[in-house]
Amino acid sequence: MTLPALNLSADPIDLTAALVDIASVSRDETLIADAVEAAIRDQLNGFEVLRQGNCVLARTDRGLPTRVILAGHLDTVPIVDNVPSRRTVTDDEGDVLHGCGTVDMKSGDAVFLHLAATLDEPAHDLTLIFYDCEEIAAEFNGLNAIERELPDWLRGDVAILGEPTAGQIEAGCQGTLRVRFTATGTRAHSARAWMGDNAIHKMGRMLTTLGDYEPRRVDIDGCEYREGLSAVAIHGGVAGNVIPDEVYVDVNFRFAPDRSPEQAYDHVREVFAADLADGTLTAAVTDSAAGALPGLANPAAAKLVEAADGKFRAKYGWTDVSRFAALGIPAVNLGPGDPSLAHRVDERVPVEQITEVTRILRSYLSTP
Amino acid sequence: MTLPALNLSADPIDLTAALVDIASVSRDETLIADAVEAAIRDQLNGFEVLRQGNCVLARTDRGLPTRVILAGHLDTVPIVDNVPSRRTVTDDEGDVLHGCGTVDMKSGDAVFLHLAATLDEPAHDLTLIFYDCEEIAAEFNGLNAIERELPDWLRGDVAILGEPTAGQIEAGCQGTLRVRFTATGTRAHSARAWMGDNAIHKMGRMLTTLGDYEPRRVDIDGCEYREGLSAVAIHGGVAGNVIPDEVYVDVNFRFAPDRSPEQAYDHVREVFAADLADGTLTAAVTDSAAGALPGLANPAAAKLVEAADGKFRAKYGWTDVSRFAALGIPAVNLGPGDPSLAHRVDERVPVEQITEVTRILRSYLSTP
Repeated sequence: MTLPALNLSADPIDLTAALVDIASVSRDETLIADAVEAAIRDQLNGFEVLRQGNCVLARTDRGLPTRVILAGHLDTVPIVDNVPSRRTVTDDEGDVLHGCGTVDMKSGDAVFLHLAATLDEPAHDLTLIFYDCEEIAAEFNGLNAIERELPDWLRGDVAILGEPTAGQIEAGCQGTLRVRFTATGTRAHSARAWMGDNAIHKMGRMLTTLGDYEPRRVDIDGCEYREGLSAVAIHGGVAGNVIPDEVYVDVNFRFAPDRSPEQAYDHVREVFAADLADGTLTAAVTDSAAGALPGLANPAAAKLVEAADGKFRAKYGWTDVSRFAALGIPAVNLGPGDPSLAHRVDERVPVEQITEVTRILRSYLSTP
Repeated sequence: MTLPALNLSADPIDLTAALVDIASVSRDETLIADAVEAAIRDQLNGFEVLRQGNCVLARTDRGLPTRVILAGHLDTVPIVDNVPSRRTVTDDEGDVLHGCGTVDMKSGDAVFLHLAATLDEPAHDLTLIFYDCEEIAAEFNGLNAIERELPDWLRGDVAILGEPTAGQIEAGCQGTLRVRFTATGTRAHSARAWMGDNAIHKMGRMLTTLGDYEPRRVDIDGCEYREGLSAVAIHGGVAGNVIPDEVYVDVNFRFAPDRSPEQAYDHVREVFAADLADGTLTAAVTDSAAGALPGLANPAAAKLVEAADGKFRAKYGWTDVSRFAALGIPAVNLGPGDPSLAHRVDERVPVEQITEVTRILRSYLSTP
């Protein structure tokens, strides 16, 4: 198969279309990684280039005072008749590029590649990271191997992930904690209920507590984070005529990044202290991931906010941003596309957002 | 295959053993029905005999003032290496007959067959009903076809079912009602919990109500019935990061037979009136069966209690007794064997209980 050619100097709208037209569902990124690597080697000046698996890495080392990491994944969710891309202009939506990856996140990749090729005088050293397998289970994420085997490639002063944010800086991210609360009892025939001890009935107080819980809203570096404490599953029952001896509730706590996962768990235990103290419930953590402080007070990050006309907001979902935050690097999401259109058959991006994000980042990366 | 011979005049302990030795798992009752039919035709005097499917029916018509129905199922739960029967005598348990059906309920069948063959002067006309498929789903129960096609065979003044009661009269039975309570909400990503409406959290009040519920105890004809209102299942949840939009709780109400199923449902709705009134919950009946009044005030039933030395108690589970009660016939369970040993691999009956139930019923059936 001939390698598809990518023109990095072309309009990033066209470059987005060219990237979308190279299908790259997770675990099938070899062709797009080959094309990106070839374009980088051919068209970028002054970059050290490294290929590892289906990750493509490139960086300058001009001795500039700050280093900015531009990172984007190359994979997409499965294609549903929405590749190749197509472009429409309508009265309703204006000029729009359609296709799998237009939002998540080949438009972001295109902006990064285009700027690396066309910045006349970058004010920062740049590290480009294009990686694979972001859209599937976290264990396959291409950044894992980079973090493990090439940790110095993840050093920098600011990291920008090109995930869709509709062109607005989204800073930091919430942490997430899942706790399974279990109540136990004693089985009995339901015709003789008094001989048993009904586990389901014991969940009344904890669910009432959840319903009454007032989640915290907290301002960090000018970003408002809204926490949430939610039951996401409840299951119990043996048979229609049996007093059940076990029931569990899975609770998901999305917490602001000023708490560590340990502090988050302490808080959750405090919320249900009465049920835990008297043995009604037991608790076990089933999953947790740290949040990421927005870090916008950092000078290098503050300049990025300036370039974006001071507009930014908190990120709620968990993204690879927190990986950089854990390394002490201020990290933000900034990319074209409405995140609520990601993973949809009708995924599409207004092309002006690609132009706008390119403008913001060109300004930021050119300003010392 | 030669038809196994049953000697109805022999000791009912031996007759129990002979019945146990004819394997008769539900849906495989032809051989035992053939054997019972042949024995009845050969050895009983003055009985009209009818075979329908694997049900065997027999009745006298001597013009006596009262008619007693003796009914027992011929099938058992699956055999687990516990057929043929065996008899042991130990210091701990005394003289015991082991095997599948010794309790549930070939010992009861044996007592009925033995008395029909050996009563010198019955004081009541007798109707014997041996039926199939009691141990599987209610729709297959052999009594259904009899009720539908031979309703006059179910007429009588008292019905005695030989289900295991350890030789003590168990009168009437509780009714049962199952109601599914559903709460609904709105899905959202758990990172933005405030955009959703968590259905699980809405179950707090109803589960607390269930936990606080004080079930009624009521005396009917000298039998104490204890009601029970129990959650038997709860299920809700979409995914670990989604605010769930639906959850249901299945509630089982076991109610004393002084309530009809309609009254029972009214009561359940009253218990959860607050949640139903404000739309937090909706309710739907998924299953219901009427209870059976003990009916021991009826003169014919009172004499049975007298023959059992005045000992009786309420029946809690639902049995075919309620089918007769629905026809206006006082009905009780009375049979050898500890019901908690039914359906167990180590099913066994102290043989003295077979002798004792035979004695009680011989006295009752001989006394005008």
